[in-house]
Amino acid sequence: MSDLTLVMGNKTYSSWSLRPWLALRQAGLSFAETVVPLRQPDTAARIAAHSPSGRVPTLLHGGLTVWDSLAICEYVAELAPEATLWPADRTARAVARSVSAEMHSGFASLRTTMSMDLKSDRKGQGMTEATAADIARIEALWADARSRFGSPAGGPFLFGAFTIADAMFAPVVTRLETYGVAVSPGSRAYMDAVMALPAMRDWIAAAKAEPWEFEP
Amino acid sequence: MSDLTLVMGNKTYSSWSLRPWLALRQAGLSFAETVVPLRQPDTAARIAAHSPSGRVPTLLHGGLTVWDSLAICEYVAELAPEATLWPADRTARAVARSVSAEMHSGFASLRTTMSMDLKSDRKGQGMTEATAADIARIEALWADARSRFGSPAGGPFLFGAFTIADAMFAPVVTRLETYGVAVSPGSRAYMDAVMALPAMRDWIAAAKAEPWEFEP
Repeated sequence: MSDLTLVMGNKTYSSWSLRPWLALRQAGLSFAETVVPLRQPDTAARIAAHSPSGRVPTLLHGGLTVWDSLAICEYVAELAPEATLWPADRTARAVARSVSAEMHSGFASLRTTMSMDLKSDRKGQGMTEATAADIARIEALWADARSRFGSPAGGPFLFGAFTIADAMFAPVVTRLETYGVAVSPGSRAYMDAVMALPAMRDWIAAAKAEPWEFEP
Repeated sequence: MSDLTLVMGNKTYSSWSLRPWLALRQAGLSFAETVVPLRQPDTAARIAAHSPSGRVPTLLHGGLTVWDSLAICEYVAELAPEATLWPADRTARAVARSVSAEMHSGFASLRTTMSMDLKSDRKGQGMTEATAADIARIEALWADARSRFGSPAGGPFLFGAFTIADAMFAPVVTRLETYGVAVSPGSRAYMDAVMALPAMRDWIAAAKAEPWEFEP
């Protein structure tokens, strides 16, 4: 699988890139990274060279280009079926895809007022009524998934073992940390499990070492 | 499969509901419809009774609730594998999921300025610079998919035979008709194929017979 290349934004800011990167890492696949720093003068031109939609992330695999974070995650799940990146049970899988898709197209307020920024401490910033509603829905969704499909028997993640649903919400976990949002004990336990993943630690360490920085 | 129920918006306006409805029909599954008219005083309360995300469509299957249009389409593809709602080839399937996901989270301007309305003729309305850019990207995406995976050998749809990618873009097809957008001959041929589907004809006829109407 050494012919896999993920074209991605830089790790401090690119929440969409974190998702498939985490799926690739959790699947145990080796892959190259082509990092396009976001919000630079040549960002759009550099992305356009790789991505038909003009956005990152994009996965290159031989002559195939897969774009969009969720489509890449689905492809990775097919490349590495032994990693069970979706729950093996059909019912759990349908719910995992539901929460993943809800994240994929939703929570616009949270994404706007609490953008991912792994270099900064923004405690107390970004909270609005709409963002609070987004966070309340996310906490309810996490609690529902974990109570029905996750801990304590199956593991600390939304569906027990790590799945694409956790990859989809990993940037939200970092946002709640960065912006210092108070959460329920159940959410706290889930967030701790995500932050403790070696792959997450690697991503965050790499982000902190990046030279690019900008004021939001 | 008679225990399948699709909770959906009304057919005139609910572009998100059309997608899984079309997937269910094309898969040959029988299902009940629970229609919640959009933009009525009790719409939110009626949707909340069925959908954890507070939005339609939602698919009920026994005790299972699957929400979000794309997650429902994935579930339908699993329920009816013989319908091959995703391309059988892995490469084609990855591209089909890419274009479906791009539609799922994108084209905000088109969705705003040319909302689906199957009861009206809005020719010449809704065009803005951002909507024109969305439409240009969609036409490029359609042409790319059809040239690589579709016609003439495989059929008139994006990946030859009908797939979920066509379900995802079906509301766009109706918008381009309703708002009278000039398109390329290739796009025209594709749109004609979508509009000629018996299921699309049934949906549009049912929309025109609906009592609900509002001014946008």
